[in-house]
Amino acid sequence: MHVVAIGGSDAGISAALRARELDPDCDFTVVVADAFPNFSICGIPYYVSGEVGHWQNLAHRTHADLEAAGMSLRLDTRVTAIEAEEHRIVVEGGGTIDYDALIVGTGAVPVRPPIHGLDRLGPDDGVHLLHSMGDTFELMETLERNPMRRAVIVGAGYIGLEMAEGLRLRGLEVTQIEQLPEVLPTVDPELGAMIHEELIRNGVDVRCRTRVEAITSGDEEEGRLAVRAVDSEGSAQPFPADVVLVVVGVRPDTELAEAAGATLGAKGAIAVDRQMRTNLPDVFAAGDCAVTHHRLLGETYLPLGTTAHKQGRVAGENALGGSREFAGSLGTQVVKVFDLVAARTGLREHEAEAAAFEPVTVAAHPDDHKAYYPGALPIEMRLTGDRPSGRLLGVQLVGHRGSGIAKRIDIPATAIFNEMSVEDVSDLDLSYTPPLGSPWEAIQMGVQELARKLAVPDLAADQGR
Amino acid sequence: MHVVAIGGSDAGISAALRARELDPDCDFTVVVADAFPNFSICGIPYYVSGEVGHWQNLAHRTHADLEAAGMSLRLDTRVTAIEAEEHRIVVEGGGTIDYDALIVGTGAVPVRPPIHGLDRLGPDDGVHLLHSMGDTFELMETLERNPMRRAVIVGAGYIGLEMAEGLRLRGLEVTQIEQLPEVLPTVDPELGAMIHEELIRNGVDVRCRTRVEAITSGDEEEGRLAVRAVDSEGSAQPFPADVVLVVVGVRPDTELAEAAGATLGAKGAIAVDRQMRTNLPDVFAAGDCAVTHHRLLGETYLPLGTTAHKQGRVAGENALGGSREFAGSLGTQVVKVFDLVAARTGLREHEAEAAAFEPVTVAAHPDDHKAYYPGALPIEMRLTGDRPSGRLLGVQLVGHRGSGIAKRIDIPATAIFNEMSVEDVSDLDLSYTPPLGSPWEAIQMGVQELARKLAVPDLAADQGR
Repeated sequence: MHVVAIGGSDAGISAALRARELDPDCDFTVVVADAFPNFSICGIPYYVSGEVGHWQNLAHRTHADLEAAGMSLRLDTRVTAIEAEEHRIVVEGGGTIDYDALIVGTGAVPVRPPIHGLDRLGPDDGVHLLHSMGDTFELMETLERNPMRRAVIVGAGYIGLEMAEGLRLRGLEVTQIEQLPEVLPTVDPELGAMIHEELIRNGVDVRCRTRVEAITSGDEEEGRLAVRAVDSEGSAQPFPADVVLVVVGVRPDTELAEAAGATLGAKGAIAVDRQMRTNLPDVFAAGDCAVTHHRLLGETYLPLGTTAHKQGRVAGENALGGSREFAGSLGTQVVKVFDLVAARTGLREHEAEAAAFEPVTVAAHPDDHKAYYPGALPIEMRLTGDRPSGRLLGVQLVGHRGSGIAKRIDIPATAIFNEMSVEDVSDLDLSYTPPLGSPWEAIQMGVQELARKLAVPDLAADQGR
Repeated sequence: MHVVAIGGSDAGISAALRARELDPDCDFTVVVADAFPNFSICGIPYYVSGEVGHWQNLAHRTHADLEAAGMSLRLDTRVTAIEAEEHRIVVEGGGTIDYDALIVGTGAVPVRPPIHGLDRLGPDDGVHLLHSMGDTFELMETLERNPMRRAVIVGAGYIGLEMAEGLRLRGLEVTQIEQLPEVLPTVDPELGAMIHEELIRNGVDVRCRTRVEAITSGDEEEGRLAVRAVDSEGSAQPFPADVVLVVVGVRPDTELAEAAGATLGAKGAIAVDRQMRTNLPDVFAAGDCAVTHHRLLGETYLPLGTTAHKQGRVAGENALGGSREFAGSLGTQVVKVFDLVAARTGLREHEAEAAAFEPVTVAAHPDDHKAYYPGALPIEMRLTGDRPSGRLLGVQLVGHRGSGIAKRIDIPATAIFNEMSVEDVSDLDLSYTPPLGSPWEAIQMGVQELARKLAVPDLAADQGR
């Protein structure tokens, strides 16, 4: 039995580890386009900031670890075609690799927005997109140039925010430009506004409702580059920069699979069933290149490292003949921005509405621990439930980095996974000690607010009947 | 409708708040033996340590808050009898209060171990048991005396450990004496040993397997008191002390209920059904005086503040004619000891065995976040699953106070509440960012260890067949 994975990031490596765990005799080859298998791309901002001293540390596992786990690595090997009927892949130079089962884990590529000049300017000019280790090395080269004073970051999603922090830590002046009304648009704007303030507190020049039109070479005095952006009132402004980072999201890298005849699904990602099978015989897909089964939404596209690990694990098991199903995502995610942490799981009001729920959302701001013990801080919380069923649908949190936000979001993530009602979350037996919590855990205080609102009849709906 | 609660701690106040929330016209009287309703007795160690500046801050709510919530408080009122048939209680002095429904929330009293001298010596001598605010004031009076150099704490459970930290913070020399082989006997000794080391690191003289035989007046030079204790080898040793704290656990305070004819259950606590009803008509009991329904064990006695809040809330709803059931405890608990935090939920190996499960336990020690991001620390973990059903039964954690232990334990607490299997916990969509976690949350890395052990056939059991 020979299993091949295309891609050495989370999905491919998780598949290999799982297959080798289940069948130590399984022959598993991971074909990696570059020389950096199993690198944590989520860790790139912390290497750029200087917090991670050596780029090698970003590897989840070393080559030796991976080989000790029994997989064969084919590094610096670009796959040019999947010949699904023949059960083989073609690599650059024309060689082929036969397989019994194939796992496509080609990941995602950065979205390249329609900004004038972006087609012309590149890493050599100080203009960077960021996704791979190769991109990272190019960025680091730019950052080591002199003078290096001003950065413009286009985009204020997860990576944009982490890079703003990282470049501030390096001592750069940072301007962050976001087209939408608020930063971190994956949470409600009330919470995004807190992150916005944290950015300002840390010296980031934040420009929302501002669209970047062009990047041009600047004059030597002001900076090597000039970013021309237009604000909501239509007035254009130039932002000088020594480095420009464009991080406005990713799209699935499906070129190989599509050329081989794979059906595409949500957002153009490779369509897979919950066993991670594509429509091609014995071809699986997992991670950022594939659609995501969401427990509340069905098929969607929600690329996250946690999901890639889980999907890869499922694909690895099924490549050996298993029939495990990916249990589904809730879009649980967390980001640290300076001293604040923002997290979410499940659905926000408008997402729930679009999915035909009848959502009710409340705000709450319980303390992270008993107020009498020093250092208590409020957690800003937004909770969404479904009126007819009483189910908890989603929770969003923003709080201090010491307030346990990343693990607190995992309580509703586990509750929603188990389809708990808003009422039942109050029944959970959660831990309490005054320095670290409250007798009703903060999440329970939040859901009790939501339960009170759900208990009030919806007058508008009643009038409609 | 007149509802009366005996006891103004967590159970009684939670009942009143819930009843008033559901029926703003409900007449609710809380009869409080002292002048301190709704005080956080879990906070006492932090007042003793000096971290909480004013004892008034230990109140979850002020008198004004409680009265604004619509309940009547009868302070400094000791109840002498429950006349269940007549639906009234008798108070000290002979007055009576009629009720339609009664909630007994008399709590627990400290266990008084058979130590020679404990019957004779009391707060005036510097010998203290600790449970109420009154006890706290007496202890504080002792601690303000001169000289005040040495403390002996008898017992190394939650409160004993928190008091050891509190008294060290006050600058006292502290000897902690525990009869059992290890401190914090509510977790496995491998984890208790870590807390033991933390105590030593912080200057606490820890004596396990040591039984206190007697407390006597000491000589003035060495200390006002002398504690005579015998170690596991039978050799007796005197420990001089200026203050002795005896904190070896609590037992339910059932005197009133028992005299009124209430049936008792586990550990002599008041027997209640899951609606918190006693055998007496219209009499409920909740909190530390009542038995605890455990989701894995059935009826037990497990007094915790979190449980008292939940049971009180159920009793308050049912006193108004409701039929809500207490969903049950998992014994989820957490304690901070200097810079470490220990937490548990569900069952340990021997508890699971006693409850007719076929438990399998593994140790794991994943990092609290990605090792490449500065400050990563291991979490020591013990996980127990049931071999035939594959269910997760219990998790115990010890880690640094910055490692999110208190909220991490809530992940398995929520999973076990929902009767998840060990395998399924790996499917949970939990949050990840490198500074605060890992793509597989530490708890998931632990359950994957457990899953591997569960997958190996039990040879001993096979041979038995």
